[in-house]
Amino acid sequence: MSRSSKSHDGPANPSRRGLLKAGIAGAGLVAGAGLARAAGGDPANLPPNVADWSRYLGPGVDAAPYGMPSEHEAQVVRRSVEWLTASRESSINFTPLHELDGIITPNGLCFERHHGGVAEMNPTDYRLMINGLVDKPLIFTLEDLKRFPRVNRLYFLECAANSGMEWRGAQLNGCQFTHGMVHCVMYTGVPLKYLLEEAGLKTNAKWIMPEGGDAAGMNRSVPIEKALDDCIVAFKMNGEALRPEQGYPARLVVPGWEGNMWVKWLRRIEVGDMPWHAREETSKYTDLLEGGKARRFTWVMDAKSVITSPSPQAPILHAKGATVLTGLAWSGNGRITRVDVTLDGGKNWHEARIDGPSLPKALHRFYFEFDWDGSELLLQSRAHDETGYVQPTKDALRAVRGTNSIYHNNGIQTWYVKADGGVENVEIS
Amino acid sequence: MSRSSKSHDGPANPSRRGLLKAGIAGAGLVAGAGLARAAGGDPANLPPNVADWSRYLGPGVDAAPYGMPSEHEAQVVRRSVEWLTASRESSINFTPLHELDGIITPNGLCFERHHGGVAEMNPTDYRLMINGLVDKPLIFTLEDLKRFPRVNRLYFLECAANSGMEWRGAQLNGCQFTHGMVHCVMYTGVPLKYLLEEAGLKTNAKWIMPEGGDAAGMNRSVPIEKALDDCIVAFKMNGEALRPEQGYPARLVVPGWEGNMWVKWLRRIEVGDMPWHAREETSKYTDLLEGGKARRFTWVMDAKSVITSPSPQAPILHAKGATVLTGLAWSGNGRITRVDVTLDGGKNWHEARIDGPSLPKALHRFYFEFDWDGSELLLQSRAHDETGYVQPTKDALRAVRGTNSIYHNNGIQTWYVKADGGVENVEIS
Repeated sequence: MSRSSKSHDGPANPSRRGLLKAGIAGAGLVAGAGLARAAGGDPANLPPNVADWSRYLGPGVDAAPYGMPSEHEAQVVRRSVEWLTASRESSINFTPLHELDGIITPNGLCFERHHGGVAEMNPTDYRLMINGLVDKPLIFTLEDLKRFPRVNRLYFLECAANSGMEWRGAQLNGCQFTHGMVHCVMYTGVPLKYLLEEAGLKTNAKWIMPEGGDAAGMNRSVPIEKALDDCIVAFKMNGEALRPEQGYPARLVVPGWEGNMWVKWLRRIEVGDMPWHAREETSKYTDLLEGGKARRFTWVMDAKSVITSPSPQAPILHAKGATVLTGLAWSGNGRITRVDVTLDGGKNWHEARIDGPSLPKALHRFYFEFDWDGSELLLQSRAHDETGYVQPTKDALRAVRGTNSIYHNNGIQTWYVKADGGVENVEIS
Repeated sequence: MSRSSKSHDGPANPSRRGLLKAGIAGAGLVAGAGLARAAGGDPANLPPNVADWSRYLGPGVDAAPYGMPSEHEAQVVRRSVEWLTASRESSINFTPLHELDGIITPNGLCFERHHGGVAEMNPTDYRLMINGLVDKPLIFTLEDLKRFPRVNRLYFLECAANSGMEWRGAQLNGCQFTHGMVHCVMYTGVPLKYLLEEAGLKTNAKWIMPEGGDAAGMNRSVPIEKALDDCIVAFKMNGEALRPEQGYPARLVVPGWEGNMWVKWLRRIEVGDMPWHAREETSKYTDLLEGGKARRFTWVMDAKSVITSPSPQAPILHAKGATVLTGLAWSGNGRITRVDVTLDGGKNWHEARIDGPSLPKALHRFYFEFDWDGSELLLQSRAHDETGYVQPTKDALRAVRGTNSIYHNNGIQTWYVKADGGVENVEIS
C-alpha cells in the first residue's frame, strides 16, 4: 500500500521537525481566496516535543457526571456592573456575547435580570393557578403541565433596557455590557392557549396577568391575542430543565416581546377585561418622551444587531490580513432577512453572510470576512427584518423619543478599531 | 376600572383558599380536547400558605457567573456502566435522554466515549498540521483557524456502538443506556474544505486521516469526498468553546457518520491515496458477520428512533387519562420525514407529531398524545428519512448480519408498560 509519507507518527516526532519547518516556511502567506494564512515559519510556534496530553491517560468518564467548561475558558462568564443598580438581588448581569458564536446561548451564560433575586422553588410544591374571567379556575402541578401537548421553539429574549446606557452616548466598553441582555435558547413547553382553553375564557376576557412566585411578585399585562398566539409555558431550555435564575420550574415565553413580560417562576395567570397597569409597566419599562409624557406600552423588541467581534473585549490580535467580523441580529417581528456592515462608519456598506438556521424571533449569526490593511476602522452593522423594517441610527431614535429614554434602544452601534487592533465604543454622527 | 376579581393577591392568600378549592372541585376532570386534567380538589395539593421563595429575596446576580442546574435536578446526569469496559479512561457514559426534551443536548450532558481519557489541552499550545499529499504542509494555531470563514450547523453525533448490547436481546433497562450514546449540538467551525484547499490537494489525494492529540492517538480514514463535502473543524458547541471531553479546543465534525470518526483534540490531518486501516476501523467499529467475515467500512448511521418517555427510567406516574409519549429520531442520510408509533406492539401504527426545527442529520423530536386506559402497552417507534428508508426491526437486522455484531444497531426498540405505569425493556417478535 502506498503512503503519502514514511511515518505515521504525530507532528512532534523529532525526526520530522526539519521537514515540517521547511513545509511551513514554504507555505507563507496565502493567495487564492486570500482569507487566511498559516502560522508562519517561526519554530517558536511549533508545539513542544511530545505534550503531556498525548503521553498520559486523561480523566475518565466518571470525572464529571454534569460537565463543565475547560479551566482555560474561565473568562467566559456573566458579568455585572456594581454601580448600575442599588441591590444585587434586583439587578442585572450580562451574557458574554464577545466570547460566543452561533445562535444558541449555553444555559450557564444566559444573562440574568431579577426584581427580587432568584426564587429557589421546589418543583414538587410548584403550582400554576389560572383564575379571573374563566369558566373554571384551575390549579396545575408541574406534572399536570407535562400532560399537555408540547412545542419546541428557539427564541431570543431581550431585556427592554438592553443598550439603555447608550441613549446618551457611548458609555460601556464592550458588547457584553452594551448588548449582553439578550440570549437565545430552545424552549420546550405547553402553548399557553391550551391552558387557557382548558380553563375556558369568558367572552369579556381581553387581557392576562402572569405573576411570578419570586419575592417581587413580578407581573405584567399581556393582551389576550398574544396569549393565544405564540406564548408558551416553558419548563425546559436547551433540552434540560429551566435554570433557577431563568424561572425554574416554569416560566412564560412571550416571543419577540420585552423580557420582563416573560414572567419567571410563573405561579398565576389572572384573566381580565382591562390591563392592570402594574408597577413594572408604568413606573418602569415605559418610554419617557421629551415633554414628560410616557408611551403606554412598548412590547415588541424591534430589529437590532451588534458586531460581537471585533469589539472592545475582542480586539484584533493579529497584524494585517484575513479577518473575520461576526455579530448577532434579531427582530421581535420575525426573521432577519439581511445584515449590512460597514468598516468606514457608513461610507460603504457590504452585505454580511448570515449563517445557520434562520428562525423567526431568534438570534441570527452574521459574518463578514475581509483583509484588514492595518488602518483604523469604524465598524457598524444594520439589520433588516422580514417586515421591511431597517435598524435605525441612535440619532434617528433620539429625534423621535428625545434622551429621557432608558428602554428599547435598538440603534446602530459603532466600534472604533485602532491601528494596534484595540477596539473602543464610540459614537459618530 | 373593572377587574375580574377583587384581590390581586397571590394564590396563597388565606382569604381566597375557600374560593380556590371550590373552583378546583368544580373543575374536575377535563372534557373537550380530553388531554389534561387539573390537580384535583385535594387541599393537600395546594401550596403552603406563603412559600419562602415568595417572602425572602433569593440569590442575586453575582451568585453564579457560570450558572448550574437546580439542586432538584441532581438526577439529570451522565451515567456509566461499571462492567461495560475494562478501564474508566477508555470507556463510555450516557446522555440522560429520558430527562431531556427538544432537540438540543446541553453541553454538560453530552455522552462521552474516550479511547485514552480526556486530553487536557492548553489552547495556546494547540496546533493542527495538514501533511501528506498536499502542495504545502501547513500548521495552524487556534487563532489561525478563527481567521477562516465559519459555519453553524446542528448535528447529531452517535457512537457506532449505541444500542450495541441490544443485538442479543433486551439487556439494559433504560433509554439512557440503550440509546444514550447520541447527542445533538450546534457546532461552529471552519469547513474542512477550506483548510484542505489552503494546503492544496495533490491529484492523487483520495483519503484523509484525522488524528487526535489524546493518549490513544485516535485516528480514522475518511474519503476525500466526505472531507470536501460537509466536514467541519469545530471549536464551538452550542455557542461556547468545545468542552474538554468533546475535543477542546478543536474536533472534527463528520455529519451523519459514526462518532469515532469525529476525531477530538484534532492535531493532524494526513492526506493519502488509500485508507490506513487503523486499529479503530479494523479490529473495532466493523460489523462482524456470521461466517467470521467483517464488513470493511460502515460509516453512515442509518435512520433510528427511540421513545424517551414513557421508558424504564421515566415511568407513567399518573393513573389513567391524558399521557404524552415523546422520543427522538435521527438519520445520517438527512432529515426525518415521519415517525410512526404503536402502543400495542405493532398491531396498530399512528403517525407521531414531529415538533421543532427539522434539520438534516440532526435530532428530531416527536410526540404522540393519547388517553391511557390503564392497560398494559407495548410501545415502539419507527423512523422514516428523506431517502425513503424505514427503520428496520432488530430481527430484520439479525437476518442479514447475524448476532456477532456490536455496532450499527438501528433496530426498533420495544418498551413494555405495566398496569402500574412501570416500564421495562423487552423484545417481541
